[in-house]
Amino acid sequence: MPQVEVCFAPPMFPAYAREGISVVVVDVFRATSAIVTALHHGVGAIIPVGSLQQAKAYLDKGFLAGGERNGEVADGFAFGNSPFSYMNPDFRGKEVVLTTTNGTQAIEMAWGFTDRISIGAFLNLSALAQHLRTEGRDVVILCAGWKDRFNMEDSLFAGALTDRLVADSSYSTECDSATASMLVYRSARNDLKHFLRGCSHRRRLAHLNLEADVDHCLREDICPVVPVLRDGKLVLPQ
Amino acid sequence: MPQVEVCFAPPMFPAYAREGISVVVVDVFRATSAIVTALHHGVGAIIPVGSLQQAKAYLDKGFLAGGERNGEVADGFAFGNSPFSYMNPDFRGKEVVLTTTNGTQAIEMAWGFTDRISIGAFLNLSALAQHLRTEGRDVVILCAGWKDRFNMEDSLFAGALTDRLVADSSYSTECDSATASMLVYRSARNDLKHFLRGCSHRRRLAHLNLEADVDHCLREDICPVVPVLRDGKLVLPQ
Repeated sequence: MPQVEVCFAPPMFPAYAREGISVVVVDVFRATSAIVTALHHGVGAIIPVGSLQQAKAYLDKGFLAGGERNGEVADGFAFGNSPFSYMNPDFRGKEVVLTTTNGTQAIEMAWGFTDRISIGAFLNLSALAQHLRTEGRDVVILCAGWKDRFNMEDSLFAGALTDRLVADSSYSTECDSATASMLVYRSARNDLKHFLRGCSHRRRLAHLNLEADVDHCLREDICPVVPVLRDGKLVLPQ
Repeated sequence: MPQVEVCFAPPMFPAYAREGISVVVVDVFRATSAIVTALHHGVGAIIPVGSLQQAKAYLDKGFLAGGERNGEVADGFAFGNSPFSYMNPDFRGKEVVLTTTNGTQAIEMAWGFTDRISIGAFLNLSALAQHLRTEGRDVVILCAGWKDRFNMEDSLFAGALTDRLVADSSYSTECDSATASMLVYRSARNDLKHFLRGCSHRRRLAHLNLEADVDHCLREDICPVVPVLRDGKLVLPQ
């Protein structure tokens, strides 16, 4: 039976990475929630890049590009990682570049080890679980965390996904962080928003008036698509 | 009010380290439990070293030295990291060198950032909490984990210590990993051994017949001493 494991932050990822795994990258607030929203709303592809400089080079070439640092739209960018920015009808069918504080860098980290990368968020939880069951590979859920630290919302998502995968015995786990994530998720699942109220990223976002973003990012299964990395772009599988 | 934070594994430590912090290193199974036991039973000092080679160099100079890798006594050593080895009356007043798979390397990692390092285990939980309250500094609990991964027993200890420090309002925390640790600890505290039965390190130790070691390491407050690092040696403060 394939195994599911959870890596709580990118600096630990080398200890979890190995050949043949499928990696799910998650950054609930807000990079991966924005990516899932974008592809569900018809964006053609998201091109994740690690640095603002790379994203600006794309801007100069005429690409649409989102840039976020520390929860705010980065200087020189028209939009950041708010999921609502990616519902724009003008973006339909287009390729959009994205750089964020944590999420796109976690994607880059995973990419160094495997080319089998998918994007997770509460928004696509069930669709993602089904995608992984079909693949049937060992899964490592890579939490983007916050600046190389553990964060609660990504770990909650990891717990939710692990819970789904082991519930129907399509996966098992012997991974302590997966077990801990499930335990925390089960104690929080009835009211994620309330549970997250005291957590670090909610505090970071609070002064930015992002309540609508937070509500959106915590909704389950409203964007049933699974973005995967192909040739450096996040797309929906054909 | 001073803050308490939890770092789940050494690769994340640079994201938690900063000037002025006090670091508690924990490796419940078994390095830090052995160190606490040793100093409680009259060992003069433990000299932690990262590599087997360094420990062997000490052996050649006539030192007592313990060496453990992957749960077993390392080749060329008479003892490893079983706490019971350090109750030996012949060790009283002596300096004993120790190298282990995870714990001594976590100590080395912390040492690169601060010289205010103490050693934690369930065996000295209350004494350690009191020591930290007296210091009054921000605390980072550094879990040794297992080969750069999260593990359950060290995180449970981190939850137990955080719980003690915030319970009497001598500390507060805004750290998501501290919050998650406390939550897991509170759900496990009534029967730590049962809770840990399915966890990774218990499985690793199971075939080694270390049941007595496990029982010892999970006992609370039977070794009320606080080893601290002074000039590269773990000693009891004068």
